[in-house]
Amino acid sequence: MSQVRFKISMSLDGFVAGPRQSVEDPLGVGGTRLHEWVFPLAAFRSMHGFAGEGVVNESNAVVEASIANIGATVMGRHMFGGHPGKWDAANPWTGWWGSNPPFHHPVFVVTHHPRAPLTLEGGTTFTFVTDGIESALAQARRAAGAKDVSLAGGAHVAREFLKAGLVDEMEINLVPTLLGSGERLFDGTGEDLHGLELIRTVAMPNVTHLKFARRSSGRP
Amino acid sequence: MSQVRFKISMSLDGFVAGPRQSVEDPLGVGGTRLHEWVFPLAAFRSMHGFAGEGVVNESNAVVEASIANIGATVMGRHMFGGHPGKWDAANPWTGWWGSNPPFHHPVFVVTHHPRAPLTLEGGTTFTFVTDGIESALAQARRAAGAKDVSLAGGAHVAREFLKAGLVDEMEINLVPTLLGSGERLFDGTGEDLHGLELIRTVAMPNVTHLKFARRSSGRP
Repeated sequence: MSQVRFKISMSLDGFVAGPRQSVEDPLGVGGTRLHEWVFPLAAFRSMHGFAGEGVVNESNAVVEASIANIGATVMGRHMFGGHPGKWDAANPWTGWWGSNPPFHHPVFVVTHHPRAPLTLEGGTTFTFVTDGIESALAQARRAAGAKDVSLAGGAHVAREFLKAGLVDEMEINLVPTLLGSGERLFDGTGEDLHGLELIRTVAMPNVTHLKFARRSSGRP
Repeated sequence: MSQVRFKISMSLDGFVAGPRQSVEDPLGVGGTRLHEWVFPLAAFRSMHGFAGEGVVNESNAVVEASIANIGATVMGRHMFGGHPGKWDAANPWTGWWGSNPPFHHPVFVVTHHPRAPLTLEGGTTFTFVTDGIESALAQARRAAGAKDVSLAGGAHVAREFLKAGLVDEMEINLVPTLLGSGERLFDGTGEDLHGLELIRTVAMPNVTHLKFARRSSGRP
């Protein structure tokens, strides 16, 4: 069965977004600092269609591997963004990513707000799932076929997946800074890693990539 | 001037002690898991006078370096332990470490409870400082001479030192597990590392050693 693979950037004090997140400031105050390591990388720039070469280093290899073999994505409502109460023809919020999002596969958005599916350019569709994470995951697995499912976050839906033991692989990109406040990834997620264990560390000056996988998976 | 060097073990979810710490369970529930990586190491076993060889690996080198060139230690009241209201001749609490503690140099305990200094075997003295961290640090610097001062924790006094910008070097031994609750190191410590930056990472399967130092120190 396809794996559920989750990756997220986290500060040394455990925050995955800064305080006062909003549609105008989706990463929260200071949240951009969690992602500065990824912006210069070739894999990131290519995925988002930016011009120029980009940096090729060990972090780039981590990002390339994290993108490879993904057939579908699950994300939470806040990651998709917008004001769901205003989702209608006059306010056609289609996510943060413009007309051609970088997914290029089906994306399932866990939300309480029903909405018709969206088909954007480049093979990205957004399907809005109102009956919970297990339903979203089942639909994503079907869409992914032999490929894996990416759990894109944010923190809330990621915590739900972790607590349910539904994450097979988790990459924590630990950024050596403090945010001081905001949203924590690990908050009420329990006293263990739900079957995950550290299997690989890549140490860079501006980020530490900590890869966890399921103990029973037989992976290296 | 001598450096103030701080090291502590922290879970992936940011806890440096488990919940419900007490004299009977000073590390809190599950807190022992933060320290399992250190127990087998040769440097740890030698420091505590345990028999047998012990493991010599990259973590051992980190511990050896952390012990080297320390001339005095500062710690908080909880790290010293005991019930200060009962410190008297009938209840001579002398710390967790027995008659010959592993410090072998002067230790300054930041506390609100005055007490006469203690002299134990092997060169360890405990001096109780009731006028704050700056006074404790000044006394420790005088005692250390050309050597460095170790900030031994716990979390409360460490936070005070961090917020005051008094830490020159910080080693976070990040343990890939969750405690779920307990005492966080970084809680109200602000939105930056108070002049510290990541200068070295040692990646092991059971711990990631993240060494921070002062940007202005000119260290590698």
